[in-house]
Amino acid sequence: MTTLTEATYHSLIAGEAVPGTDGTLRAIDPARGTETGPEFTTLAESQADAAAQAAAEAFGTYRKLPDADRAAFLTTIAENINAAGDDIIATAMTETGLPQQRLTGELARTVNQLKMFAKLVASGDHHSVRVEPALPDRKPLPRPDLRQRKLPLGPVLVFGASNFPLAFSTAGGDTASALAAGCPVIFKAHLAHPGTGLLVARAVTEAVTAHNLPAGVFSFVYGRGTTVGQALVKHPAVKAVGFTGSRSGGTAIMATAAARPEPIPVYAEMSSINPVVVLGSAISGDSTALAEGFITSLNGSAGQLCTAPGLIFVPAGEAGDTFLSQVKTALSQAAGVTMLTPGICSSRVEGEKKLASVPGVTEVGRGTEGQTQNAPAPAVFSTDVETFLTREELSEEIFGATCLAVRYSSTEELKKLAVGIEGQLTATLHLDTEDSTDVALATELVELLELKAGRVLVNGWPTGVDVGDAIVHGGPFPATSDGRSTSVGTAAIDRFQRLVAYQNLPAALHPAPVREDNPWNVPQRTDFLSQLS
Amino acid sequence: MTTLTEATYHSLIAGEAVPGTDGTLRAIDPARGTETGPEFTTLAESQADAAAQAAAEAFGTYRKLPDADRAAFLTTIAENINAAGDDIIATAMTETGLPQQRLTGELARTVNQLKMFAKLVASGDHHSVRVEPALPDRKPLPRPDLRQRKLPLGPVLVFGASNFPLAFSTAGGDTASALAAGCPVIFKAHLAHPGTGLLVARAVTEAVTAHNLPAGVFSFVYGRGTTVGQALVKHPAVKAVGFTGSRSGGTAIMATAAARPEPIPVYAEMSSINPVVVLGSAISGDSTALAEGFITSLNGSAGQLCTAPGLIFVPAGEAGDTFLSQVKTALSQAAGVTMLTPGICSSRVEGEKKLASVPGVTEVGRGTEGQTQNAPAPAVFSTDVETFLTREELSEEIFGATCLAVRYSSTEELKKLAVGIEGQLTATLHLDTEDSTDVALATELVELLELKAGRVLVNGWPTGVDVGDAIVHGGPFPATSDGRSTSVGTAAIDRFQRLVAYQNLPAALHPAPVREDNPWNVPQRTDFLSQLS
Repeated sequence: MTTLTEATYHSLIAGEAVPGTDGTLRAIDPARGTETGPEFTTLAESQADAAAQAAAEAFGTYRKLPDADRAAFLTTIAENINAAGDDIIATAMTETGLPQQRLTGELARTVNQLKMFAKLVASGDHHSVRVEPALPDRKPLPRPDLRQRKLPLGPVLVFGASNFPLAFSTAGGDTASALAAGCPVIFKAHLAHPGTGLLVARAVTEAVTAHNLPAGVFSFVYGRGTTVGQALVKHPAVKAVGFTGSRSGGTAIMATAAARPEPIPVYAEMSSINPVVVLGSAISGDSTALAEGFITSLNGSAGQLCTAPGLIFVPAGEAGDTFLSQVKTALSQAAGVTMLTPGICSSRVEGEKKLASVPGVTEVGRGTEGQTQNAPAPAVFSTDVETFLTREELSEEIFGATCLAVRYSSTEELKKLAVGIEGQLTATLHLDTEDSTDVALATELVELLELKAGRVLVNGWPTGVDVGDAIVHGGPFPATSDGRSTSVGTAAIDRFQRLVAYQNLPAALHPAPVREDNPWNVPQRTDFLSQLS
Repeated sequence: MTTLTEATYHSLIAGEAVPGTDGTLRAIDPARGTETGPEFTTLAESQADAAAQAAAEAFGTYRKLPDADRAAFLTTIAENINAAGDDIIATAMTETGLPQQRLTGELARTVNQLKMFAKLVASGDHHSVRVEPALPDRKPLPRPDLRQRKLPLGPVLVFGASNFPLAFSTAGGDTASALAAGCPVIFKAHLAHPGTGLLVARAVTEAVTAHNLPAGVFSFVYGRGTTVGQALVKHPAVKAVGFTGSRSGGTAIMATAAARPEPIPVYAEMSSINPVVVLGSAISGDSTALAEGFITSLNGSAGQLCTAPGLIFVPAGEAGDTFLSQVKTALSQAAGVTMLTPGICSSRVEGEKKLASVPGVTEVGRGTEGQTQNAPAPAVFSTDVETFLTREELSEEIFGATCLAVRYSSTEELKKLAVGIEGQLTATLHLDTEDSTDVALATELVELLELKAGRVLVNGWPTGVDVGDAIVHGGPFPATSDGRSTSVGTAAIDRFQRLVAYQNLPAALHPAPVREDNPWNVPQRTDFLSQLS
């Protein structure tokens, strides 16, 4: 670790290093299975309160920041992260086992997300302003002047993800969209990459200082999820939660948030096995490339992507057999990749054992183990439709490069599968788009799958999420806790806002975004209904 | 009751009259305190399943209806209600005690809401389509074709309100916005106006038939909230709930929905005391008109409006004393109005007794009792800031024409009140907008109150909600279960939709709203980010 040269580091609460009193931790280099880097003190439950208080105090100022200033702040965070990029990537490589190329791409994505939100905020689009001017002569009653906008919810608690130490962590999508909305962020560090997180947290903190913002706009805390994390979910100053992680972790947060005296929204991205449907026409010719593409998508980042294909529906019969034998060949050339932590690796190995032990499940093929510690071989199993639909454990996510192929014998069985699956982040179809029979079937399948998934793809692989204005990274429960929303892309900002209307306020009392002279040059939708036929 | 001439009526499940096996009920004429009209059979818990099943079956067809067809269906509902207007109003007058003029206005609002959603749906605006066409040459990675839209959630369960037998009931705002979104509706009838509900349910059912829609698009069920209501909240086919009623009823539904294997969104509008802040400048001259306006707003519909002013902050000192003496005078000329049910009336009377018994609370004045049964006198009480902030029961809603005046001695106390209140539907300021000191204070107060309320008003009264594009009828908990949204106005449709994206679909597989040739002429936001600086 190049820039973390002290022996001990601490949480950063409102810009101040606060030694935790609940012991210390160190990162583990998963490739070696050994501790690495300095030690980090973890907060006791009672110490978390200060971060929530500071965020609540900062909210009053931060939420009123002009759009241009908030955009500039987000841009500075992006620039600070870029400037520290080499150190961040080097530290992340050691702490997560992820290769340099992947982390370089992830850092660029993290920076670009922040810049995207800066552009969005500068445009004022996120205020969603609607104006209906007074109509004093309307009958039977005059219409008052009404102006609607979206306001930030308040301090947001964000839990970092293990598998994206940058793009879904300290200054990742949840943090960026919450800050963009005008919400201070309390970031609960993921303890598997404590040094990486701290370097990014410093980049954010320096931006807070550079823009003379209240220090409570951002805090970064080390602490156990079950104590510090839960205490912050319960804290009255916290008004929303963003989380990326396991189903058990996410549902525990949902339960705590729902049981608060004032329940708050939870945006937890949890569990998805991302079904891929292979139609007959996709494998009627040579399916070697399809098989290779599948294994590349499955084994990328050791399968530790929210959108990794954990489930594939393959026709029964000869063409399907051939496809799976090509999958077996592709697997035989694939080596295991270092997983993020020894714990994640052992869960993956245990999950696979459990899967393999279900009667009716057989192994299609498996790759080789990787050269490092914690690098189990990628593997594909198969089963039939009835086994899949009757054994609930086969729908559980195994986080890693393990996939289950379900062999279907008819379009009826395939539709039953599409109806039977739980909520997903993605659903993918492979077909020959010149085959009219399969196009007709795919039309029906898209209609079933769009009810189950946040993103529907054709002839691609679900891994790799394009960050922009039209992306959805979300989906019905249990993929997320709130299938109405997305955690990636511009629409993610909506999660941290609420509607408010102003009635008959004199001009002097209007907040800037709804003012008639529109000083921030915000898009205002005026008298929309009168323009409709 | 003019059109309900049979002895017994039943629930309407997917267009069929289904006799309930859990006994019968009759309406009570609250003005006389006697039973009235025919009997209605109530469903047993096990009978509710059929409505949910029918809604689930109808969803597949109904959600795909072209915008123009769904708009025509909503328009037919509006026309059917209008055609049956005289019968509906006559029945509602008997069942609710509300006067003809109020119900005539409410019927017009109900009809206009449906027509507004028809216009909105015909415009295609609600799909919120965003398109990012493929950029095959983008570096470092090509951009896929991505198209985002909003989809209906699925069958919605709506609980009718006691206080708006038309506009927040059978074909009221929740039903209209859910149907507009493409969601079938199961309507749990309010048992205080069973005949009114049935007449409106027939108007909806006839529109379903006239447009050849699957019958399960709409069901209307009589049953107990604790059995039939709860069973439907738990039903796996139900994907969202709309509710208007008490805090205890709303939070019970929230708890059930959160505990489901698949948690679902609940939009409950529950409890609000709608603080009104009187600044010094508002009463520095003659405050007679202000006092009269206040009592008119308080006593309208017997105070049984979600936005009735239940709390008013009045300056301590002489001007405030004078204002309250004018309030007392206005009250002395105000007579009690028939309340909706004997139960609501007795809760109001008990709540007022409890309020009056709190040490530090005194009576300002009271009107006269009405001429009918269940028409208690409107009343205003007063207390000081410390008593208000330390006695939690003083923040509880008393549904009816009872208001508590809190006397404040300084701007600091006033701000403490604004910070100390719970979430509200509305917050109102009264001031002389030419008084620069009060305008400065009001600027600070708007910033505090917009965090607590869904709608902020100046120099008006919160009762009376204008239905349009810029209204917000919502607010932080406990005003609603989901302060992000509104239950009135065009934005209400968003509650029943979720995001989905399509990646690299061939044109033949695109759903109509996202198609490049745009057959429904839907607004499509294309390549938004590239247009920003």
